[in-house]
Amino acid sequence: MDLQGTQLLGSGTSRAGTDTFTAIDPREAAPLEGSFHEAIPAEVDRAFALAAAAHPAFELAGREARARFLETIAERIEALGDGLLQRASAETGLPLPRLTGERGRTCGQLRMFAKVVREGAYLDVRIERADPDRQPLPKPDVRSMRHALGPVAVFGASNFPLAFSVAGGDTASALAAGCPVVVKAHPNHPGTSELVGRAIVAAVRDCGLPEGVFSLLQGRGHEVGLEMVRHPLCRAVGFTGSLAGGRALFDAAAARPVPIPVFAEMGSTNPMFLLPQKLAAEGAALAEGLAGSVTLGVGQFCTNPGLVFAVRDAGAETFVTKLAEHLGGAAEAPMLHAGIRSAYERRLDELAAVPGVEVRVRDGAVGPCGAKAALLVTDARNWTGQETLREEVFGPATVVVLCDDLAELAVVAGALPGQLTATVTGTEAEVAQVPGLLATLADRAGRVLFGGFPTGVDVSSAMVHGGPYPATTDSRSTSVGTAAIERFTRPVAWQSFPQALLPEDLRDAGPAGLWRRVDGEFGQA
Amino acid sequence: MDLQGTQLLGSGTSRAGTDTFTAIDPREAAPLEGSFHEAIPAEVDRAFALAAAAHPAFELAGREARARFLETIAERIEALGDGLLQRASAETGLPLPRLTGERGRTCGQLRMFAKVVREGAYLDVRIERADPDRQPLPKPDVRSMRHALGPVAVFGASNFPLAFSVAGGDTASALAAGCPVVVKAHPNHPGTSELVGRAIVAAVRDCGLPEGVFSLLQGRGHEVGLEMVRHPLCRAVGFTGSLAGGRALFDAAAARPVPIPVFAEMGSTNPMFLLPQKLAAEGAALAEGLAGSVTLGVGQFCTNPGLVFAVRDAGAETFVTKLAEHLGGAAEAPMLHAGIRSAYERRLDELAAVPGVEVRVRDGAVGPCGAKAALLVTDARNWTGQETLREEVFGPATVVVLCDDLAELAVVAGALPGQLTATVTGTEAEVAQVPGLLATLADRAGRVLFGGFPTGVDVSSAMVHGGPYPATTDSRSTSVGTAAIERFTRPVAWQSFPQALLPEDLRDAGPAGLWRRVDGEFGQA
Repeated sequence: MDLQGTQLLGSGTSRAGTDTFTAIDPREAAPLEGSFHEAIPAEVDRAFALAAAAHPAFELAGREARARFLETIAERIEALGDGLLQRASAETGLPLPRLTGERGRTCGQLRMFAKVVREGAYLDVRIERADPDRQPLPKPDVRSMRHALGPVAVFGASNFPLAFSVAGGDTASALAAGCPVVVKAHPNHPGTSELVGRAIVAAVRDCGLPEGVFSLLQGRGHEVGLEMVRHPLCRAVGFTGSLAGGRALFDAAAARPVPIPVFAEMGSTNPMFLLPQKLAAEGAALAEGLAGSVTLGVGQFCTNPGLVFAVRDAGAETFVTKLAEHLGGAAEAPMLHAGIRSAYERRLDELAAVPGVEVRVRDGAVGPCGAKAALLVTDARNWTGQETLREEVFGPATVVVLCDDLAELAVVAGALPGQLTATVTGTEAEVAQVPGLLATLADRAGRVLFGGFPTGVDVSSAMVHGGPYPATTDSRSTSVGTAAIERFTRPVAWQSFPQALLPEDLRDAGPAGLWRRVDGEFGQA
Repeated sequence: MDLQGTQLLGSGTSRAGTDTFTAIDPREAAPLEGSFHEAIPAEVDRAFALAAAAHPAFELAGREARARFLETIAERIEALGDGLLQRASAETGLPLPRLTGERGRTCGQLRMFAKVVREGAYLDVRIERADPDRQPLPKPDVRSMRHALGPVAVFGASNFPLAFSVAGGDTASALAAGCPVVVKAHPNHPGTSELVGRAIVAAVRDCGLPEGVFSLLQGRGHEVGLEMVRHPLCRAVGFTGSLAGGRALFDAAAARPVPIPVFAEMGSTNPMFLLPQKLAAEGAALAEGLAGSVTLGVGQFCTNPGLVFAVRDAGAETFVTKLAEHLGGAAEAPMLHAGIRSAYERRLDELAAVPGVEVRVRDGAVGPCGAKAALLVTDARNWTGQETLREEVFGPATVVVLCDDLAELAVVAGALPGQLTATVTGTEAEVAQVPGLLATLADRAGRVLFGGFPTGVDVSSAMVHGGPYPATTDSRSTSVGTAAIERFTRPVAWQSFPQALLPEDLRDAGPAGLWRRVDGEFGQA
């Protein structure tokens, strides 16, 4: 597919910068077709000026227009055909079946948000009608609903070149809310980003929306992204990536003259608690399942289970042996890029150097970005004393922490930092016997699982893909599922307005079927 | 009433610090009974350790227990009788009728949140049931609802010694959510704070809740507050006060190793747009009404209208003359304390020094903390060029900005920083004729009014008392009304749990009447 390597600024393109870069195929360590221009500050400025200008008209175009727009983006992405998947595979080393699924998820998310926007419940419409006779003071007519924040900066993620990149969950939810989006393409898949970006630009045109609704900027380093977050017209930030990257954006946003919210999802260690009875009964199956979860996508999922807590007994012994067999036998696979691979090896070196940590599985990989699974084992005392053991290893590795008993296991749970997920695997009876464990995990994680494995995040109304820092910079939201739209809105109240001047969604009649609260009571218009 | 001047740390008291201070009656500039000890870091630490320890049990006590607790606080406050109001009046200079109303509002808020908690809709319960046959992947059982964030630091406000102080809106909404609260008493009404604080401590005991649910700390300077915001166990902050104060807390919270949200409501200029036809028809009444709104509570409301935009014509001329008569004739009244009064005079000096600003009304006051109303007039060009004219004057003053025509008025609206409120006063027809004005104001304010005056914030499900920075540090929330509870919660998902291990509110049966979404559809359990 033809790649131009330009910024996409509304309906136009620009390559004002002179620095260029290329994408690398991690399987071959070979450069790919296409030369991409680094965005310069004037291009960042242009993107946000267009976005701010588009915001009122985009929101006023209404919910049906936005729903159609989201569906059109999905159609335009599907129309790119397999060329998109091939480019994405070349840029990330991810296999085509995985990317086929990811495209389905991406388009599914866009269509899900179309439904969310059509339904309108996310507006949280509240109508309090006037009561001039109320004592001690008359009651005014006050109506509120959620409005779009304005231009949003979205950062593409390396590990989801489609579902959390240019047209991914952050973009879909921001557009659904009525926010124009300026995307910073991830530098490791600039070609995939350009293809999807042009599909969105085409959808903007198809739907007759203002051009500033979408722009795409390319850049390798941190400068373009920081420029975006610091831009006065930027109103919010969506990010999926590393703790260092997310924290840098958060700090930049908080230091602005006008601070803005940052929704950074920065991954976590996703602890699993394997209780003795379950482990004794199903240890072999759990070892096989865990190995699959650890190595899924070469361990490059935010929900990769990097910590496993168990009570030291015969069942745990057998489980660790089986897990070592599975992980030791797992095939080498290429990571997303050379930097992620070297960071993975560096982190394994750090952990292996901690006294009391036993390296049970670790093999050198052969391919240029290749990685092999690793297994480390330690005990609860070592784990508690060493902060490095609590931090994420991004890649196909996990650390088993053996505890003396269930009481110690419950105590170490209380030492966990914020998590995207926490999993308890046990019989119903034994889980009930560890007092406070579930409350502790709910206090530290965005999602608590009973059995199963944390990888695989279902996209639904109830999903929470979030959690306390350092899992995210804003635990009050989710980046997956329908509730993600709420991040990009704020409530506005309208007081004593005549019906004709109110937004349609706030009028007495209201669009048929719209859920709302009238004088405190839920019902449909 | 007997005042002990101690910190209230759970069920205990402490006066470990040696620094003390007294309250001052602003009407007399005379010290009041009672010597209050500055909290020291060990006391801050103790308050948060108690709060963190209380959090799980407080949340697990359930919604009915929290509702009863809120009602008991209201009863305990009412049981303090008029002694509370007399102390509050002595400490703030606010008259007894105003404080009687404020006590009613305070207890009304507590009882409103009891209803909110009993109803449970704020939990936002979402249930997605498993579907093992779903393609391409089986659907897991996922259920989410909102959990309490944990210990919250609440700062008492000087201008609402009851309704936005120790048992005010922030405290009530945080307790309703299930968050223990550590209050920093405002140093200008420490006695009122102690009385209300002891009422809450008594309610904790009455209800058999863990003592750490509530603590109260006293302090004059910034140190105690910053210590609270920086405490590792603090999970969120509620504040009502100045821009400088709110920003300092926001910066401290953002700089923490684990950042926490700050809900600071920092006031605004609350612009009013008076359109020509309405002004011609009702200018005299509008002048009288505006003067009443500007001088209400000696201009010490967050929603005080400090900016008035009008088109320069005969109607505006008459209006300004009438407004000058009313403001010039308004009686002197004491401000909350000497610092606020001197800041008021200093801001008036700053504004009066701006070229092109005409001082139409300004008189010196006589009493120690006395203030008199002021009126300044300028034109749109001056206003646009001078940042100081866009910033709040805390006190009974307003600035009238005359525009050449409606087009210029719409343009200056676009130059406004974030606001709590914006008011458009015009006939329905003329408002409809200023294109984009309402969209511009909805983009800049938390509440847009059609006519009337912004002072007086009705406490209801639809109220939004918030808005873009610098009105608040988090525009995605409100500090007044039922939605204020959402600030202190975050969603948690539970995946594949057996019914018996789920929180009761997430079970299939659910508490009768609880609103929730099941497989995406709204309904009641």
